[in-house]
Parts: sequence; structure tokens; C-alpha cells
Amino acid sequence: MTPTDRETAEQLDRDDPLAVWRDEFVFPEPSRIYLDGNSLGIPTRRCIDAVGAVMRDQWAADLIESWWTHGWLDLPLTVGDELAPVIGAQPGEVVVAESTTVTLFQIVNVALDLVPGRRVIAVDPRDFPTDRYVAAGIGRLRDVEVRLIEMGDGFDDFGGIDVVLRSLVDYRTAQVADMDAETARAAAHGTTTVWDLCHAAGVLELDLSGIDLAVGCTYKFLNGGPGAPAFAYVASRLHDRIVQPIWGWYAQSDQFAMERPFEPRSGIARLMNGTPSVLALTAARHGFALTREAGIHAVHAKANALTTYGTDLADALGLDVVSPRDVARRGGHVAIAHPDARRLHDALTERRVIVDRRDPDVLRLGMSPLTTRFIDVHDGVTALAELIAAGR
Amino acid sequence: MTPTDRETAEQLDRDDPLAVWRDEFVFPEPSRIYLDGNSLGIPTRRCIDAVGAVMRDQWAADLIESWWTHGWLDLPLTVGDELAPVIGAQPGEVVVAESTTVTLFQIVNVALDLVPGRRVIAVDPRDFPTDRYVAAGIGRLRDVEVRLIEMGDGFDDFGGIDVVLRSLVDYRTAQVADMDAETARAAAHGTTTVWDLCHAAGVLELDLSGIDLAVGCTYKFLNGGPGAPAFAYVASRLHDRIVQPIWGWYAQSDQFAMERPFEPRSGIARLMNGTPSVLALTAARHGFALTREAGIHAVHAKANALTTYGTDLADALGLDVVSPRDVARRGGHVAIAHPDARRLHDALTERRVIVDRRDPDVLRLGMSPLTTRFIDVHDGVTALAELIAAGR
Repeated sequence: MTPTDRETAEQLDRDDPLAVWRDEFVFPEPSRIYLDGNSLGIPTRRCIDAVGAVMRDQWAADLIESWWTHGWLDLPLTVGDELAPVIGAQPGEVVVAESTTVTLFQIVNVALDLVPGRRVIAVDPRDFPTDRYVAAGIGRLRDVEVRLIEMGDGFDDFGGIDVVLRSLVDYRTAQVADMDAETARAAAHGTTTVWDLCHAAGVLELDLSGIDLAVGCTYKFLNGGPGAPAFAYVASRLHDRIVQPIWGWYAQSDQFAMERPFEPRSGIARLMNGTPSVLALTAARHGFALTREAGIHAVHAKANALTTYGTDLADALGLDVVSPRDVARRGGHVAIAHPDARRLHDALTERRVIVDRRDPDVLRLGMSPLTTRFIDVHDGVTALAELIAAGR
Repeated sequence: MTPTDRETAEQLDRDDPLAVWRDEFVFPEPSRIYLDGNSLGIPTRRCIDAVGAVMRDQWAADLIESWWTHGWLDLPLTVGDELAPVIGAQPGEVVVAESTTVTLFQIVNVALDLVPGRRVIAVDPRDFPTDRYVAAGIGRLRDVEVRLIEMGDGFDDFGGIDVVLRSLVDYRTAQVADMDAETARAAAHGTTTVWDLCHAAGVLELDLSGIDLAVGCTYKFLNGGPGAPAFAYVASRLHDRIVQPIWGWYAQSDQFAMERPFEPRSGIARLMNGTPSVLALTAARHGFALTREAGIHAVHAKANALTTYGTDLADALGLDVVSPRDVARRGGHVAIAHPDARRLHDALTERRVIVDRRDPDVLRLGMSPLTTRFIDVHDGVTALAELIAAGR
């Protein structure tokens, strides 16, 4: 059997140990081929049920007392602890509270303030633009210099750079950086690396013990809902030293003592700000719960199988695959380049094949492991090849 | 009839034109007397329904396409426009996106950057501590001096102060500041005032046309849900001049152009950051929708009637009312001082009378106009008086 035979995909689906998890999701009707779970994950039944239950059985039932009786006060920490094993962190190292942009802003400032007098941030211009925007905003705010430098494999020119903001998975090509090696090379120059794990969390099996600081979102592979709150990771050895920029009463050591100067809580709790969105946190925790239960090792293995199949199929159909050939360096999507990417994206959408497009010429075929079947990959990639052939 | 007669309260309830709105809320069972809608509002039926519908009929049904087909991309602006008439703002002057603390952080920084070289913030130490914490955090971050100064009626010593952060309603005493007069006195010295409207929004009929900048939360009198996103108000005449500190892709003039430097959108949209929580915004808009429909003029009138009745009753029962006697200077709660406030709060809770307590000695009896009956005020204040008498 070759990858172009639909039977090949059908057999892979029959052999897939994670296929059972699809029953937990609410798929759209009428059916479509959804290869964009790396932009917005599909909702789980228990997420929808849990948000409804929190509204009726907690908010409406117990009102203000819910902050204590239902554990709302520490929800960002509880949810962080639940997420920790999914992203390779330890309990007490993760908090989930604010939007990705705000969390990035916090953590880049934390990195700057780890050492007095830090004044230079480097960002890779190929990374997602918000990373660059956040750094530029901090640059203006704090009179810090922001350098745009293409980093990556073997880059070692960290002289004069205090903080590096890097994406683990390239949002266009799906290329995975060598996190530990890059962190160590930077550290050898006294440079702290902040890792943006947005396109890695929930699809790659990670071990964060070798890094200092990271940020990532929960609405992609982690299925946490549209605009779900982001996570911040700080290695526990740094907790005593971190100072974050946005001081609110949830980070105050005695939250309900109203007369004292700000004295931050110990541990990761000092990254909290104000009153967190209980509804958004509830959706997030019940979204990523499935990834935790399925196990990130198995989830990563299926991602590898899906993207390997997708790459083989795209090759067989003569498409221009620009994501890495080496599965160990590939994230959870396959990137295909074509000069008519915009037109192809629209034509695929019309055929109800939902993929993502990034300027100038890249189509991203996301393969979220708990929701994507091999036949989805087969049908989506085949549809793309047909459209390209028809357009010649 | 005197205020101590329960019949007086019953008659006031029968005459209340806003009583019909109670049918729209989901009240807790078993019944209790809830005088804490100024901390967390009660959910509306349509809020619970709408959040469920967004999860099932938008997120699950249309997935990533919802950002366009269901207007999610501009939801912070749409919800801001819906909120504008409730808080006395014009369309295009309000955005609803991040937590209250983050929004305060943004707007205080905006105020600093309205004029080059600003270096001094003043905060009233009696205001809610997050205001002080946020200012202190900015002080550290930007090398700005933060002065703690008791301001209020007639204060005019603004020399050398660039930015003032002030609460319109004192969270303890419910005293309402003279917003326009204070703003004008500050402006005469070149000082910009940022108004914290957390305890004013949804209960006072406001006109923001005389002020520059404001922030407020939507989870108190606006019933937007636990940790609901906050609003930021910027007078339209300032929009071209504002620079905010947290730069994300939702504030970029061409959001999906990934190669350009940060160029902020025009108007209030430049206050947006990253991907907003669609679920939290949905709850918020359907929470405060009732206040918009009932009309803030009628809502404020009922708040005045409730707090006037509560004050008269507390006086008649010999309680120590510390909220203003002048209804024009009183927010939506009645404050009662007692040295045993902590014990009384616990005893009231045991009797299922839910009020709020603030150190050292204040009990706050919140009277959220759309959900509080005069008999709730009667029964709650009477229970408090009985407990005090029993404790003598």
C-alpha cells in the first residue's frame, strides 16, 4: 500500500490507540476536514458540560462564597499544576491566568529583571509577530534595546544580549528548535532565554527542567477554548528572584489585608495579577484534561505518525513540503509552500477543508493528535493536490 | 409606617418598577439574603444560555472560522460599544478585554505617556489596594515616583504630580467623589486623572465626557461573571495620542501581516492585546445587557431608593452607618462600622445573610439594583441589629 491509497489511511486509523479519544469531542456538523486544530482546538464534551456546571452549580448556587468553597481563589495555580505534567514541568512551576500576550509581557520583564542593569533583548524576526511586538513595547517602555536576529541551529553570537525570546516550534515551518542546547549556549554568555511554547504545548513531549522561563497558549493543541488563558512557567530555583511587572491583589502575600504595601507571595503565585476569569479557566482545564489523561508521550507519538504520513503523502503527490523531514525536528503540522497559497486556501475552504495560511506562501496543515484521523490527512492533502493540478 | 416594619419594605417592593427584572436572574437555592452583588453579581439566564450557545453553536460548529463569521475578532470592541451607554461613554471609546489589574496597568501607563517626561503618580491610600499595587509596580518598572496622598473633596495640591489614580466610589464607605470637579482641578495643574470605576459601573448614572481615562470591572453590579474582563475608557479626543505598554497582534493595524513592525490600530482598538477570551466576553455582555435594557437612569434611581431605605433602617436600629447621608454622594452599598465586624460577618453568614467585610471594622451591605429587594435589605439589616444586640 502507498500513502495515496485511502486504505492506507483507514488501516492507520484502525491501528490508532488514541482513536477512542475522539468520542470525547464535539465535532462540527455538517462534517468537514479540520486541519486547523493547531489554531483553535475542538471543544470536548466535558469542557462544555463543566462550564455550564460552574455557572449553574457554583456561580449561581454559591455566589461570592464560591471563591472559597469551590477553590476559585487559587484556580490559576490549581490549573497550572494540572497542566504541569502535560508540558514537562513540576507542580508549583506553572500558572494559568492571563492572555498569551500579557503573559509574554510579564515573563520577558521577569527575564530582564533577573539581573540588574539588563538592557538588550533579542527576538528572531521569523517568530510569531506578537513576540516581536511585545519585545518592542517593552523596549519603548523601559528604554531597552530590541535586536532582531535570526537565531536557530548553532547560533552562538549572544555577546551583549541579556534576554532572548525564542519560539520552540516555528509557526510557519513547524521546525523544532533544540531547546536545551540553545538555552545552554545562551546561558554560557549570561543570556536568559524565554521560550514561547505556543505551537509546542499539547503536541510535543517536553522536559522543561533545563530551561528557566516559558510561556504558551492553551487554545491550540490543548483545546482550551477561544482565547483561553495562557500559561507561564518559571523554574522553581528562580522563584525567590522573580519580580513581575503587573502587581495585583492576587499576588499579594495577604490578599485581604488592604493596608499594606505590596509584598509578593512566594512561588509561582507571585505571577498572578487580578481576579482571574473562572469561566475561561474552567474551559481550559477541561480542554487539556484529555491530553493529560491520554498521556503526552502517546499524543506526541501520534503527532509524529500523522505528520510523517502527511509528509509522505504530500511527497507522493508532488507538493512542496517545507516542514522538516526529520520527525524529531517537526512539530504538529505539515507546511506546504505554493505561490498561490491564498487562492488555494480559499478553494480548500469552499470544499470544507479547513487549513491555515500564513503569508506569503505557506499552507499549514495542523494535525492535532486527539482529533485528527489519518483519513482527514489523506483527504485534505489529496484535495490540495487536486486543486493545484486543476489550477495549472 | 416606619422602616423597621417589614410591611414598609414589602410596599416598596410592590411599587418597584424594576422588580420584573428579577425573573431574568438565576437565584440560589436554598434561598439566602444576598447583599454582596457589589462583589459578585448574580448570573442572568441569558448569560448562562449564551455561553452554552457560543460553545455549541459557534466554537464547536464553526471552529476557527468563528473568528470571522461570529465576529469574535472584534468582540472586545463590540462589547465595549454595548457597554458604552451604561457607563456614560460614546461608541468607540470603550474596550473590554483583559482583567481589571492588567487594564489598570495599561491605562496608568497610557496616562504617563500622554506627555513626555512624566515621572510622578499619586494614589489615594484609602482606595482599593490593587490601585496602589499597580502604581507601585509601574513605579519600579519605569523609575516613576509613586506618592500616597489622601485626596478627595477640595484637594488641590497637584503641583509636581503628573498622573492621579482615583476611585470614583470608595470601596469601603461608598462615598462618591466629585469626578468632574476633581478632574478639572487636577487638569488645571497639568495632571491627568485615571478614574477607577469598579464600584460605580452599573449602579451610578455617569457621564464620562468630562474625563480622560477610566477603568472598571464588569463582575460587580454589571453581573458579568466571576473574573469577567474589565473595561477601559479613553476619551476619543485622545485616541491619536495614546501609546499602551503591552503590544500584541490584536492591536496591530494589519493583524495578519506578519512581517511588519508594530503599527497600532487607530482608535480604542489600539488598547487590545492578544487573543481575547470569547467565553468570558460572552458572559460579560449578556450579564450587563439587562442593565442596558433597564436603563442606567432607572437602575441608579433604585440604588438610591435601596440605600436610602437601608440607611434609614440602620439608623432606626441604632447601627453605626459610615456611608454618606447625602444620596447624591453615595454609591450602591451601605457601610456599617462595628468593632466586632469579623465576628458579625461570620454570624450573618451562618444565618445565610451574605454581606462583605473590609478590615478593620466595616461591613458592606451591597444593594445591586436589579437583584436586591427592599425586603432583603430589611431582613439583612434587621438580622445584623439582632446579632449586635445579642452580643452585648
